Amino acid sequence: MSNLPREPKIITSLTNDRVKAIRALEMRKVRKETGLFVAEGASLLITARDNGFVPRTLVYQTGTVDSGINKGLVTWALKEGAEVLEVSAQVLGKLASKDNPQTMLGVFRQSFADGPTGALHEDQTWLALEEVRDPGNLGTIIRTCDAVGVAGIILIGNCCDPYSLESIRATMGSIFCVPLIRMSLDAFMARVAGWLGDVIATDLKATEDFRAARYRGPQLVIMGSEGPGLSERLSQAATRRVKIPMAGRLDSLNLAIATALTLYQIRGPHLKL
Amino acid sequence: MSNLPREPKIITSLTNDRVKAIRALEMRKVRKETGLFVAEGASLLITARDNGFVPRTLVYQTGTVDSGINKGLVTWALKEGAEVLEVSAQVLGKLASKDNPQTMLGVFRQSFADGPTGALHEDQTWLALEEVRDPGNLGTIIRTCDAVGVAGIILIGNCCDPYSLESIRATMGSIFCVPLIRMSLDAFMARVAGWLGDVIATDLKATEDFRAARYRGPQLVIMGSEGPGLSERLSQAATRRVKIPMAGRLDSLNLAIATALTLYQIRGPHLKL
Repeated sequence: MSNLPREPKIITSLTNDRVKAIRALEMRKVRKETGLFVAEGASLLITARDNGFVPRTLVYQTGTVDSGINKGLVTWALKEGAEVLEVSAQVLGKLASKDNPQTMLGVFRQSFADGPTGALHEDQTWLALEEVRDPGNLGTIIRTCDAVGVAGIILIGNCCDPYSLESIRATMGSIFCVPLIRMSLDAFMARVAGWLGDVIATDLKATEDFRAARYRGPQLVIMGSEGPGLSERLSQAATRRVKIPMAGRLDSLNLAIATALTLYQIRGPHLKL
Repeated sequence: MSNLPREPKIITSLTNDRVKAIRALEMRKVRKETGLFVAEGASLLITARDNGFVPRTLVYQTGTVDSGINKGLVTWALKEGAEVLEVSAQVLGKLASKDNPQTMLGVFRQSFADGPTGALHEDQTWLALEEVRDPGNLGTIIRTCDAVGVAGIILIGNCCDPYSLESIRATMGSIFCVPLIRMSLDAFMARVAGWLGDVIATDLKATEDFRAARYRGPQLVIMGSEGPGLSERLSQAATRRVKIPMAGRLDSLNLAIATALTLYQIRGPHLKL
């Protein structure tokens, strides 16, 4: 990494190899192979910067970085040794999503953490998601976990990709703030076996109201997939089963909603204005 | 309406006028012109039936209604005088969404209610949404309102279409259970002026924790658009401003999450296991 800011490279061709490589990150397969992902918009780039993440590549549209926040982001990226590409509006249109056009995007390295390992502080709350399917739900959950100060999110089994564009957008930048951990169901079951605090599941058949329960820390909240809910095996791992009361005919809430209600209840004592 | 069940009509052509007309309901313009919408899947059709809604048209894939729930739905639709179309898998593939294939769908008349009018019971909670943009958020909010027993949802100004496929799917059937009301901002402001209970807004600058507040009924919760939040004019209409506490750097939650937390807090006393 040089201390001398390099110059942006200018690209106008839609068939440029760098353009094609970035565009290919729309595909989960390519994200998996490269370990990279795309975050769109200055707001997400600022959150990345504030959390110590440097893009491998910063792409911006010609004429949109002459001043202000965008100029600062380009200066920062160049200083940190990132590849910086200036592209035409046409090229950016190919790279960015259609329904939420931005003039800037960053390519970042995906980050997965270890853990939870060692002795956990009893003030900690962890969340485990089993085979979550909807990237919008996952991104929203990541954002909510950031808002309540969850220590980390464990993705069990075949979850959707937290680094898909839809998920990243829904996180509103929290992707750079909340540790993500991947685990097989077997590995998770082994880890849960020695868990010191409560392992909490929402369950239609539970007889305890989630608002009435007291939760022993460190808490581990486990939530199932959108349709089927928790697998039998994982459900058995819960030491506390609670129910979110509902009016009328309903027996379920959207996964991100149920997760948020549960987490706000559990993290409540830690959250102050 | 005859008491004699009619026979399903069989369609195999992709260019059939009925097929094209149903497919056109993907477009907001056509939904607006016709006042119709599409609900996909047996689960939504059952909820419609249980709430007294009859489809104008029921479409099912050949060979999928020989027994069970699907057969019962076809018998019901024929008895109620609905147009019933049996279509090939290829035709259904054109009509149904790609990412969540179903073998049955219904075309229903959109329903918008009046109100809130007259003397409201103090146990009631109403929700007003100003220019909500994301149909997934709107559908999820409708589902949550059903879960907490909200009296009705007022859509102020230019909201996204609650009858779009994405919204309908996110409601999981609650579209048939929660009254929707459309109002201009002016009409809403006139209605709010005489509101007897609390008019509640979440506000970053509020000094009262949303969990500590007591809410006088009938409550009216007002929530703003995904990015900008409440307009100044609507914000001024609130009689109670509360804040949802957040950890870390965050200053906002997903709209559907913030709405759910607020509604569960307010409706809490009415919700029992």
